[in-house]
Amino acid sequence: MSSFTGNHILSVTQFNREAIDLVFNVAESMEPYAKRKKRTTVLDGAILGNLFFEPSTRTRVSFGTAFNLLGGEVRETTGMANSALAKGESLYDTARVLSGYSDIIAMRHPAAGSVSEFAEGSRVPVINGGDGANEHPTQALLDLFTIKRELQYNNKTIDGLHIAMIGDLRYGRTVHSLSKLLCLFKNIRFTLISPKELAMPQNILDAITDAGHSLHITEQLEGNMDADICYQTRIQEERFPSQDEANKYRGKFRLNQSIYTRHFQSKTVIMHPLPRDSRTEANELDNDLNLNPNLAIFRQTDNGVLVRMALFALTLGVENLVSQYERDVVWYTNK
Amino acid sequence: MSSFTGNHILSVTQFNREAIDLVFNVAESMEPYAKRKKRTTVLDGAILGNLFFEPSTRTRVSFGTAFNLLGGEVRETTGMANSALAKGESLYDTARVLSGYSDIIAMRHPAAGSVSEFAEGSRVPVINGGDGANEHPTQALLDLFTIKRELQYNNKTIDGLHIAMIGDLRYGRTVHSLSKLLCLFKNIRFTLISPKELAMPQNILDAITDAGHSLHITEQLEGNMDADICYQTRIQEERFPSQDEANKYRGKFRLNQSIYTRHFQSKTVIMHPLPRDSRTEANELDNDLNLNPNLAIFRQTDNGVLVRMALFALTLGVENLVSQYERDVVWYTNK
Amino acid sequence: MSSFTGNHILSVTQFNREAIDLVFNVAESMEPYAKRKKRTTVLDGAILGNLFFEPSTRTRVSFGTAFNLLGGEVRETTGMANSALAKGESLYDTARVLSGYSDIIAMRHPAAGSVSEFAEGSRVPVINGGDGANEHPTQALLDLFTIKRELQYNNKTIDGLHIAMIGDLRYGRTVHSLSKLLCLFKNIRFTLISPKELAMPQNILDAITDAGHSLHITEQLEGNMDADICYQTRIQEERFPSQDEANKYRGKFRLNQSIYTRHFQSKTVIMHPLPRDSRTEANELDNDLNLNPNLAIFRQTDNGVLVRMALFALTLGVENLVSQYERDVVWYTNK
Repeated sequence: MSSFTGNHILSVTQFNREAIDLVFNVAESMEPYAKRKKRTTVLDGAILGNLFFEPSTRTRVSFGTAFNLLGGEVRETTGMANSALAKGESLYDTARVLSGYSDIIAMRHPAAGSVSEFAEGSRVPVINGGDGANEHPTQALLDLFTIKRELQYNNKTIDGLHIAMIGDLRYGRTVHSLSKLLCLFKNIRFTLISPKELAMPQNILDAITDAGHSLHITEQLEGNMDADICYQTRIQEERFPSQDEANKYRGKFRLNQSIYTRHFQSKTVIMHPLPRDSRTEANELDNDLNLNPNLAIFRQTDNGVLVRMALFALTLGVENLVSQYERDVVWYTNK
Repeated sequence: MSSFTGNHILSVTQFNREAIDLVFNVAESMEPYAKRKKRTTVLDGAILGNLFFEPSTRTRVSFGTAFNLLGGEVRETTGMANSALAKGESLYDTARVLSGYSDIIAMRHPAAGSVSEFAEGSRVPVINGGDGANEHPTQALLDLFTIKRELQYNNKTIDGLHIAMIGDLRYGRTVHSLSKLLCLFKNIRFTLISPKELAMPQNILDAITDAGHSLHITEQLEGNMDADICYQTRIQEERFPSQDEANKYRGKFRLNQSIYTRHFQSKTVIMHPLPRDSRTEANELDNDLNLNPNLAIFRQTDNGVLVRMALFALTLGVENLVSQYERDVVWYTNK
Repeated sequence: MSSFTGNHILSVTQFNREAIDLVFNVAESMEPYAKRKKRTTVLDGAILGNLFFEPSTRTRVSFGTAFNLLGGEVRETTGMANSALAKGESLYDTARVLSGYSDIIAMRHPAAGSVSEFAEGSRVPVINGGDGANEHPTQALLDLFTIKRELQYNNKTIDGLHIAMIGDLRYGRTVHSLSKLLCLFKNIRFTLISPKELAMPQNILDAITDAGHSLHITEQLEGNMDADICYQTRIQEERFPSQDEANKYRGKFRLNQSIYTRHFQSKTVIMHPLPRDSRTEANELDNDLNLNPNLAIFRQTDNGVLVRMALFALTLGVENLVSQYERDVVWYTNK
């Protein structure tokens, strides 16, 4: 049992450094189960209510898989068109009812604040799987966990990190939440690269400087950077007044292997919250980076399973019981 | 093994008083598992086909959860847009095929009579999860089970019950089915409160009087009632010729704490089939009733899990084996 | 472990006769579990990613059920409207991400070639559940498995088979794939009955004659045929220039009990890939055939579960371990 047990996970602002350390330690301990070296059934009989009132295949499946890997069952719903919410039911009522059908809930909803409102009516712990422009705390945690792991290969820690964030820093929910979490650490160097129109909001900038971190803001990739992490984001075309404007910006903030070689040191890790747009020539993260071993985007999504397993285990108070309910895996796996 | 084993559950008319007693006794025995005091795997390996050709999140999840709580697996489908039914397949064919993939089926479909037609083709037991305006027997059973349990707190039984039904008694499928089940009991007093346009259908009125029960029909809440149960329903605006008419009726048949205090005794239990509409000021069941301990609406949905567990156990003939396949629950639960 | 272990199943062209024999032997060994005589948990802890980017209730549920019957869990998605693919993500990225959430993937997608492209990015084995007009190998295998089983009742083998294929042989993916598989056997007699406009493609005809099989092509049912199998297909009205044309063809290529009696020997087995259209009078496979014991269409879908179980077991290398993880089934079943 930890301080997480029985509590909701709604926002990155809930986490202090000690809590983050705990989550990450538990996440590391989940690896043998995620890699199918072993099977655990510690959550045998538990039911996850996987409520995606706004569809999101990968986040939904990631939560569901994490719960299955601990031995639990998943009941889920996708979309809102036919839900009682669409017929005028309050989030409170929906929460009272659906929390009677599960032991823990992962929820996504398009409206900012909706998951917290839902949590007030819920009789079981609720994990925020994204509530509109507001929060997506498990994404921020998996991003930070990935940074920690990638740095470890180079014998570095999050303290002292130099991170470059590129692209749409204004509307990109992930970079806001990640920045907030990084503020809990020491001596972080932020290099923020975005068009002025898509600059990081002032409240995040204030949080960074208030925490004593170093901040460099620029409108384009410059010179040779010693960033440990390059966190690229998606620029949505609809943010711009015209297609011409969008194309101009696209060119300036895209990343491919030759741009990477020109601007980053050979160990800089490339991250992105995904999905990336692969339809156009000049996309934000070119496919030619797929051969670059520093491209960590798929390690990010893999790490998401570990982090979500950790949050389930902590919230349901079994983080120390997992190995007691262990079995052998007898089927083929190359995980 | 009981008389339920291997049989379909299609209509409330299948039930006599003995059958109801059996279902309710089994439902009571399910509580330790539903409350996660214990885990059972009696249905290990069984597969529920949860076929919601008409979407209904809460009923679908309730069936699925009930099956998981007995140790079974759930395969499901939602909607009809992409189904073979939409391509001209008969319900018979759909049933032959899908019953090959499961051990029991819970089915909802928008067309009255469709579930029975489907059941004729099915090679496994089918439980009606609602077929349009026709039947929704598990809702009626959970309503009656809730009445029984709520009365028990006051040392009362269903025999001798005074129930007030309010609102749309014409189109409200739940009040029809519940009335039919109540006809199997003794000395029931029905007070039916609705606009004339939405009065209880004659065949239900006949069934009530034929069974020797007492019947009082009125168009508005009157004086001080000694009802044990106040069963409120949703009045759908589209039933009325104009928004003005709808508003007038809304005002007359709504319930909030002050109306409750004025018209009901302090122990009257408030029920509603849910969802309730919380968008408007004058909704049918005001949120200020949430603090009223007699508001049983969420106990109703909780009881639905028990009743559905009971029906699964009886239909699959394991009602006496559940505790033989018991395990401890080791994870946190506040159920 | 077999040659299947860890490999994708994308096309019928992957199979030689030895591989087919292996799949069918394993499929036969699955029957006690599919019929619920026994339960196995050999895939305990394994997760199937059941990714139906093109919806198909029965194929999706059949894959999911097959995986559950081996003890595994299923995470799934239906449709593409809200997927990352719709936002411009490449199949490669989708595969990299989603293969991190599962141990094996069954996938359907509307675009020909998409499943193979996805498989290149996947880190786990992928089974093609249908990629548009291209391939649907598990359907072809279950069709062939059904032929083998049906012939066995008459002490016959696939070698020496006489099969009549009727209807839309041009666009019908199933008859193409089945024909390719049959080319691996000996002395097959093909009678192909279709309107000229919907004739079997030349490449399939070539494959049949190259393999030394006998071929008879005609535009209508003739005389009395000694076919072992009559494989009927659906003629889609939209293939024809006008409703009149469609009706004319419908009449010519439909099958009902009296046409069956007139043209086929009493042991001819009737197959169809389903769904069949039951809305019109003159449908391709009349409901009056439901009483004909040679109508094998529902044995086909039942066999699909066995074949899919076999493919999962082989791909995950547990085909010889299934019975080691056996338990009793204690609940009612009439399978």
